[in-house]
Amino acid sequence: MRAAVFHGPGDIRIEDVEKPEIQAPTDARIRVTHTAICGSDLWFYNGDSDREAGSRVGHEPMGIVEAVGDDVRRVEPGDRVFAPFVVSCGHCEFCRRGLHTSCVNGDSWSGANGGAQGEYVRAPHADGTLVRVPDRYADDEDVLESVLPLTDVMGTGHHAAVSAGVEAGSTCVVVGDGAVGLCGVLAASRLGARRILAVGHHQDRLDLASDFGATETVLGSETDAVERVLSTTDGGVDHVLECVGAAASMETAVDVCRPGGTVGYVGVPHGVDEAGLALTDFFRDNITLRGGVAPVRAYADALLEDVLGGTLDPAPIFTETVDLDGVPEGYQAMADREALKVLVEP
Amino acid sequence: MRAAVFHGPGDIRIEDVEKPEIQAPTDARIRVTHTAICGSDLWFYNGDSDREAGSRVGHEPMGIVEAVGDDVRRVEPGDRVFAPFVVSCGHCEFCRRGLHTSCVNGDSWSGANGGAQGEYVRAPHADGTLVRVPDRYADDEDVLESVLPLTDVMGTGHHAAVSAGVEAGSTCVVVGDGAVGLCGVLAASRLGARRILAVGHHQDRLDLASDFGATETVLGSETDAVERVLSTTDGGVDHVLECVGAAASMETAVDVCRPGGTVGYVGVPHGVDEAGLALTDFFRDNITLRGGVAPVRAYADALLEDVLGGTLDPAPIFTETVDLDGVPEGYQAMADREALKVLVEP
Repeated sequence: MRAAVFHGPGDIRIEDVEKPEIQAPTDARIRVTHTAICGSDLWFYNGDSDREAGSRVGHEPMGIVEAVGDDVRRVEPGDRVFAPFVVSCGHCEFCRRGLHTSCVNGDSWSGANGGAQGEYVRAPHADGTLVRVPDRYADDEDVLESVLPLTDVMGTGHHAAVSAGVEAGSTCVVVGDGAVGLCGVLAASRLGARRILAVGHHQDRLDLASDFGATETVLGSETDAVERVLSTTDGGVDHVLECVGAAASMETAVDVCRPGGTVGYVGVPHGVDEAGLALTDFFRDNITLRGGVAPVRAYADALLEDVLGGTLDPAPIFTETVDLDGVPEGYQAMADREALKVLVEP
Repeated sequence: MRAAVFHGPGDIRIEDVEKPEIQAPTDARIRVTHTAICGSDLWFYNGDSDREAGSRVGHEPMGIVEAVGDDVRRVEPGDRVFAPFVVSCGHCEFCRRGLHTSCVNGDSWSGANGGAQGEYVRAPHADGTLVRVPDRYADDEDVLESVLPLTDVMGTGHHAAVSAGVEAGSTCVVVGDGAVGLCGVLAASRLGARRILAVGHHQDRLDLASDFGATETVLGSETDAVERVLSTTDGGVDHVLECVGAAASMETAVDVCRPGGTVGYVGVPHGVDEAGLALTDFFRDNITLRGGVAPVRAYADALLEDVLGGTLDPAPIFTETVDLDGVPEGYQAMADREALKVLVEP
């Protein structure tokens, strides 16, 4: 089979690799029909974080179940399924409390499981990990494109909104206009926020934020953005979705947060430990910092229902579609900010 | 009048200073009868944080109202009162939501208000700032010693417990065996926690933690402490009270917190920004960081009721009592860890 392999910054290659086998009775093998390139993939691609050369990449798989182990009960060959960016068993303490990212049997899309940017992956703990798309939608390409973001960015944006305490009537700020930030806007809107201020650096993405439900958009330098948000909200908002993970965006988040408010953060911390989180700002204003790596499996069923019902549609975040051979150029297009998010059809 | 004045690290002097005057119709002047030296005072005393030479010190005032401005309604001369470590108006947005530390009319015990370690202070916004001790207890020295910690450390420990989400039946860890940590134990116990593990470095203070309701105490190096807590709690607890504010104690707090749990923090961040908060640890485990500078005014009435009712008694944190002339040696005794907390009777 063929799959994308990371060889170093700027160097993704499509290579022949071994097709994953069913190893455990709880495994399934998926023929990947749809996947994506993630903003977090850019960190190793750009050389901003380490990753082993020769490792398979991609963590947003959707496809058709091709084979299952003897103990798999909830899916069978031929089913259309998708999976969150981490494997989870579905029955440990943390899965049961909705924190699948802390699953004690957890695993990742890498190594012998294969990366999602390839023809096949093995899904360990298939009953816990995989989410089945109902048969009536299983071959509807438009629907599938809207479902695919539930593997990561839509659930992650939702986690930001939930973590920030957004509810009906809330006023909130979404920091970041990448795919996660835009999904955060969708999530806040879905939860009933009355005012959603999207803060970003790209006018075209902020326009999409408006389509997604942002009531105001703020374009500008960090300083300008903060001042404009503070002035239009009479001193800040109670709910901030931090959807980037960089030190500067975390600073923007706390700066626009009202004393006693909450910053919901979901961007993998990136340079924050090194630059030092401005904890003193959080402390002085009693601002809560809640969130972390998003347990998107916990949200998948409810979000899927809304996508299938036609009331939630993150598909516009995909601005480019490539096949497997196009994955390397897809990475480059995202690195160059030419593509917002690239859909891959292996 | 006489008051303690800071002149530099290790140099506190008792000097003649100007007696504060009523300046605004909402002011009151208090003759300080009881106050204390705070662990946070040690930071400038030890040279670990900056403070202007010549500044008055002390922020935990209790005393007798001597004079009031024309608009003061809730207290009158002769009343026994105490005040939290910050001034608050009682009627702004943040006071009304119980976040008195973010009062838009807030002020501190310094400058022309005088420091609490002196014969008199001026209390701006007296109706909002001052808490009246009912007349029947107003001259009971034993009661007053139990009430005095409500000016700061008892309310701060309570804020840690509330921020950590402690409630009836909780299992929690209290990191820190200073006055705030010990009050955190009292607060967790008062809120109904079933298991309270106190982590500290001084056996005598941990013994006091046991008296205050800690069900287990852990003495040892950071590493040992974490391992022991993890082993006895099957992997950590959902509620951690971080009562120090140092980088190492914050690290201990996140290390003993279960994925999905909450660290309630109240210690003024001290070296955390510089050392870098290990945000990645919080992120990976979805651990919430909640708290900040404690709005002790918000908690004063409820805690006072329990102190007066005899069900809450933080007085044992005072291990030494001095008069005003004894304040400099009181600082040194706390710096030398000879005294846990020093009560001052000016």
